[in-house]
Amino acid sequence: MSYVRPNIDAMDGYTWGEQPADGRTIKLNTNENPYPPSPRVDEALRSLSGASLRRYPQPTALPLREALAAQHQLTPDHFVLTNGGDEALRLAFTTFVEPGAAFGVAEPSYSLYDVLANIHGASIVRAALGEDFAMPSDFAARMNDAGVQLTCLVNPHAPSGTLQSADALSSIAAELNGVLLIDEAYVDFVDPSCGYNALPLLAHHDNVLILRTFSKGYGLAGLRLGYLIGAPELIGPILWKTRDSYNIDHISQTLGLAAFTDQAYASSTWQRVRDARHRLHGALAARGLPAMPSQTNFLLTDCYAAPISAADLYRGLKEQHILVRFFDTPRLNRYLRITVGTEEENERLLNALDTLL
Amino acid sequence: MSYVRPNIDAMDGYTWGEQPADGRTIKLNTNENPYPPSPRVDEALRSLSGASLRRYPQPTALPLREALAAQHQLTPDHFVLTNGGDEALRLAFTTFVEPGAAFGVAEPSYSLYDVLANIHGASIVRAALGEDFAMPSDFAARMNDAGVQLTCLVNPHAPSGTLQSADALSSIAAELNGVLLIDEAYVDFVDPSCGYNALPLLAHHDNVLILRTFSKGYGLAGLRLGYLIGAPELIGPILWKTRDSYNIDHISQTLGLAAFTDQAYASSTWQRVRDARHRLHGALAARGLPAMPSQTNFLLTDCYAAPISAADLYRGLKEQHILVRFFDTPRLNRYLRITVGTEEENERLLNALDTLL
Repeated sequence: MSYVRPNIDAMDGYTWGEQPADGRTIKLNTNENPYPPSPRVDEALRSLSGASLRRYPQPTALPLREALAAQHQLTPDHFVLTNGGDEALRLAFTTFVEPGAAFGVAEPSYSLYDVLANIHGASIVRAALGEDFAMPSDFAARMNDAGVQLTCLVNPHAPSGTLQSADALSSIAAELNGVLLIDEAYVDFVDPSCGYNALPLLAHHDNVLILRTFSKGYGLAGLRLGYLIGAPELIGPILWKTRDSYNIDHISQTLGLAAFTDQAYASSTWQRVRDARHRLHGALAARGLPAMPSQTNFLLTDCYAAPISAADLYRGLKEQHILVRFFDTPRLNRYLRITVGTEEENERLLNALDTLL
Repeated sequence: MSYVRPNIDAMDGYTWGEQPADGRTIKLNTNENPYPPSPRVDEALRSLSGASLRRYPQPTALPLREALAAQHQLTPDHFVLTNGGDEALRLAFTTFVEPGAAFGVAEPSYSLYDVLANIHGASIVRAALGEDFAMPSDFAARMNDAGVQLTCLVNPHAPSGTLQSADALSSIAAELNGVLLIDEAYVDFVDPSCGYNALPLLAHHDNVLILRTFSKGYGLAGLRLGYLIGAPELIGPILWKTRDSYNIDHISQTLGLAAFTDQAYASSTWQRVRDARHRLHGALAARGLPAMPSQTNFLLTDCYAAPISAADLYRGLKEQHILVRFFDTPRLNRYLRITVGTEEENERLLNALDTLL
């Protein structure tokens, strides 16, 4: 007999981006920061001893929550640290969605949302994004009609890279009956000239959570560290009840604090990525591969007008040891999602494309 | 309005053992190993760079699973690594228990089980352990009658420290209709002369999971690393579906592997703890504080015959900067649970007790 719950038996797990172990592959497929974390992370690593791991870590990652609070001009009870942004997403289901109730998403989006909904036994209410990945104007009404208890919107959007305004999100939050989680995994790469800032929404809406991660902007994907920002009424149940006790280990607390307090270094990598993004966008367009306007560290490049298909470009690049992301779905199979790499990596990508096109 | 699920609203979170930040408190309250992890952990720490954290970690902790498989003479598909043993317990609920269905436990036990059941919306079927914390003979029948889908038994038992035989567990597994998770958090401290080994149960019962942790035996409570051992039919759904993708960060994989491959060092700390446990057991008994026979790194000491109550002893020790665990429940409020410390810590504990008694 099977002991596994039927919904788990029936579902598919999350599909990771390829992670080649060889040293020569250029990885432009999983949106990692092309630059390493702050040198302070190396210093913090050297300050750690095995003996410091003998005891349980600080249970609520308080020093890190205090640093986040100071930076964001809020109090520590507005923050909960999570084992990567993925844990934050799961905890939003655990805390706010009754099993069997509905979860809402604008598609296409981060494929993990579906996986988490399936694990939780939540039904999924899908609203298709329009041409150019624009949000349907009746999005919130459709979520409310379906009784959605939690909606996840990734902004800037993945996989398109486009940015919605905070005003647009505010209107959606005001209309939604359930919790709105704004997944800001890529927010560090938004051009400051956009003036984007969703944090003021917290003061005006009691149903908003904002997700941030150290994986992209701080170059720490390997560390697994993310956090949620929200009103204490939403954060408290996660912080004190639903997350695993001691969910953030001592090293992650230490290194995360080191990276976060070096805002100058982090900001410098964000600007380098923005500059490289701008150049890569132009260079791809010049090759007949126009990309969506992106405020992230990746470009969704339209291969519709190219002489070979997106799938063939993906395979051709892979043969040249360059990994990009191809999504084999009807909506996305004309695109490639290309992470902005270092200048050298982007050059090698462009040279490889030139041989293929 | 509240957006929080009613079961989460109504429940209490887990209560951590006290973690004083001052340097002078002797911590004998949370069952950490009194000895630091292997020197190889320090070496592995020094081998790490910030740059190694830029990319996502190996998604399934494969090198560590291969090392565990070699040590336990099984294949890697029998293992899933978790963010501390706590995540393993949660994932057992997620994977095997329908929300609203029943979870079974022999009480008293690890208080986190209740918390996890409450989060999951599972009902809790409780069977009280008998005098001297013995398992009721009709335990499995009572679980089956109540439709229990998952039963957690901690062995050696916490908080008593007593050990059930693998044969007794095998009989329970054979009778249970649901999954039996044997929580072996303290198994490393079992005296080898007991001949205890639950791993052969995996070959005879398709419903058994065994939980291990690096927190106690390997001196790595601060790292958050545990694992489940079981048939691939039980492990697979957790490994590939229900755990968070990338749940084990790159550093934990690296340091865990370093600690695990130094079995000689780990074993030497286990023997030191056993020796100290034996001496402390005798010294407490000589002071009128007999403890249960323990195969763990703690002693449950009966204060019934002492001139002052367990609660007062706890407070008196705390005033002398020695923390032990007092459980304020009808069943346990005559006991103190005292972690076996270093020789020096145990001496200071005994001296403090002498001044109080």
